[in-house]
Amino acid sequence: MANQSGQLSDVFYALADPTRRAIVGALVRGPESVSALAAPFPMALPSFMKHLSVLERSGVVRSSKAGRVRTCELVPRTLTQAERWIAQQRATWEARSERMARFVETLHAQETDGERKDRARR
Amino acid sequence: MANQSGQLSDVFYALADPTRRAIVGALVRGPESVSALAAPFPMALPSFMKHLSVLERSGVVRSSKAGRVRTCELVPRTLTQAERWIAQQRATWEARSERMARFVETLHAQETDGERKDRARR
Repeated sequence: MANQSGQLSDVFYALADPTRRAIVGALVRGPESVSALAAPFPMALPSFMKHLSVLERSGVVRSSKAGRVRTCELVPRTLTQAERWIAQQRATWEARSERMARFVETLHAQETDGERKDRARR
Repeated sequence: MANQSGQLSDVFYALADPTRRAIVGALVRGPESVSALAAPFPMALPSFMKHLSVLERSGVVRSSKAGRVRTCELVPRTLTQAERWIAQQRATWEARSERMARFVETLHAQETDGERKDRARR
């Protein structure tokens, strides 16, 4: 549980940067070599590699080396865990909103009913 | 666009901490006073307030003061933006996986067709 929470923290932290989100946005289109992946980014390779290693540590991206070429690919399951956490919060919020709406409706119905009885009594 | 990306970074950063996620998990059940919200957390109030201010800066939480009581509430729309970003990445990934699957099917069909023709020729 602690580990799962730790990984969730790492994933959200990894996504908290526009460069790292752009890397994810490239990898959802398919695996890429590090050099192809780095090419569009206006930064030195060591800075780019730091972003990549944050993504790898979080488990959002994994890489493997064949000869001299390191290829990166997305691990979609890790992203899905973060999406699911937000969706769970939304579900709880929406259930509460529905309960509130029903409560207001009940109050309104009781008031209307009360007024009708008042009028009947007059 | 830069602002939207900046807010997305702030939201993901705000969620990259178990205490802040627990605060969100409490606020999806409804608004809470700061003191009620802080009570279950085993930390000094100033530390708790720092976490709360990260959540406020990101727009995930807002607070208002009435007399001496500051009440916090969730801004679900902000969370939804983060959820939507992840969902968009997933959609692109899934579309790619489907294209890949169709491509493999086509290859397989062509091979099977080729083998049939080979057998007919023999």
